[in-house]
Amino acid sequence: MFIARIKGNVVTTQKVQAMTGRKLMIIEPLVVKEEGKGRSMAPTGRCMVAVDSIGAGTDDVVLVTQGSSARMTEQTSETPVDCVVIGIIDTITVHGDQTYSKNKE
Amino acid sequence: MFIARIKGNVVTTQKVQAMTGRKLMIIEPLVVKEEGKGRSMAPTGRCMVAVDSIGAGTDDVVLVTQGSSARMTEQTSETPVDCVVIGIIDTITVHGDQTYSKNKE
Amino acid sequence: MFIARIKGNVVTTQKVQAMTGRKLMIIEPLVVKEEGKGRSMAPTGRCMVAVDSIGAGTDDVVLVTQGSSARMTEQTSETPVDCVVIGIIDTITVHGDQTYSKNKE
Amino acid sequence: MFIARIKGNVVTTQKVQAMTGRKLMIIEPLVVKEEGKGRSMAPTGRCMVAVDSIGAGTDDVVLVTQGSSARMTEQTSETPVDCVVIGIIDTITVHGDQTYSKNKE
Amino acid sequence: MFIARIKGNVVTTQKVQAMTGRKLMIIEPLVVKEEGKGRSMAPTGRCMVAVDSIGAGTDDVVLVTQGSSARMTEQTSETPVDCVVIGIIDTITVHGDQTYSKNKE
Repeated sequence: MFIARIKGNVVTTQKVQAMTGRKLMIIEPLVVKEEGKGRSMAPTGRCMVAVDSIGAGTDDVVLVTQGSSARMTEQTSETPVDCVVIGIIDTITVHGDQTYSKNKE
Repeated sequence: MFIARIKGNVVTTQKVQAMTGRKLMIIEPLVVKEEGKGRSMAPTGRCMVAVDSIGAGTDDVVLVTQGSSARMTEQTSETPVDCVVIGIIDTITVHGDQTYSKNKE
Repeated sequence: MFIARIKGNVVTTQKVQAMTGRKLMIIEPLVVKEEGKGRSMAPTGRCMVAVDSIGAGTDDVVLVTQGSSARMTEQTSETPVDCVVIGIIDTITVHGDQTYSKNKE
Repeated sequence: MFIARIKGNVVTTQKVQAMTGRKLMIIEPLVVKEEGKGRSMAPTGRCMVAVDSIGAGTDDVVLVTQGSSARMTEQTSETPVDCVVIGIIDTITVHGDQTYSKNKE
Repeated sequence: MFIARIKGNVVTTQKVQAMTGRKLMIIEPLVVKEEGKGRSMAPTGRCMVAVDSIGAGTDDVVLVTQGSSARMTEQTSETPVDCVVIGIIDTITVHGDQTYSKNKE
């Protein structure tokens, strides 16, 4: 899995029928950036599309699963989905320091 | 999934029988490019081949699925296909701004 | 899928039994290169090994499938194969221009 | 599989139900770095999230499996997990030299 | 599949039970390097861990399979393994030239 920030959403009318009603989010993977003693979650400039399975929204920092494992949720089972948001992240702790907290954003 | 633009098509006569009648598209993945306050969908220079499952054509901006999930459509089930176009994108919205609209191209 | 040129072949005597009789090809992925108004299929310097399922040979430009989908051919079913040649490419057309033709090489 | 160091952990409250009770670790892949005659396991700056299946903790050097194979453990079976820690590494030997030893850290 | 050289091995005591008795090798992917008219198999600096299924050892040049296909051998079936050595390479021929021969090393 990887950590990403939701940046927006995608609308498609003409699509495979199994995708009807699926919420499509634009996500950007994040990495732990270490500068001196400080750490933060930094953007990567990459861009992917994931189905939301938990009610996430723009700016949320989320946990994302790829590949065949992305079909292991109720919303994505038996669909042509290879990327799914499976959790909203509360905190990220790196070497004992809280690098990210949802409540402090 | 990822966003791509269809750039053209591929013709193969000598091929695995299960691929007969499958439409093969050349696609280029796109990324969200941020410049100052403006945003656009920018090309990456990468190149892949996807099966079309929805009647997409050259220049369309589309949603693409990879891996085993690419076999989860009627056109690709039980075939040696690892990349499929599953939707034509109408709009992409990033942080509240409409970054792409099919009608404005 | 992706487009590749076959560069040569690999011989292995000591191997998993299921691989007996499988033809192993060295392949190099190609990308569409745009220079001014001209376009060509350019080498990437990358190197992979694929099983041939259709009688392809050195210098052929071919269509290649990866992952679990590479096991969806008669020659690769139930084998530890993750990359297979599924077609010999006749023509590649990008934005209306014929970028590659087997007959003109 | 690949070698990684555990850097910390991730907490998510709002998540897919199948992920309840799964321990989520931040991991950083390592590579063998050769300098003159010396060798060490060097960080890559990359960042992923894996489920722990064996009681690993921060700073452990571990063995990690990705993709559908990440669902082949008791803790991850039938879950939307694509990355799992499957072993704590005791020693890494490269060309006869012990490049890493858990006991010497 | 890809070509790699075995560089060493990994020992893990605390691990998922299904991995008991599996031989873990450190491998480095190789690429065909072309210099003038000469060609050789060059190291990439990348580093992965594969299960050996055929009795390979340090310095052998081998054929490696990834993903779900890595579970299609007797030693790796039903295990959390995503990378397996499936053959020891005797010769690699590129455009008619023997680029690698096991007997000449």
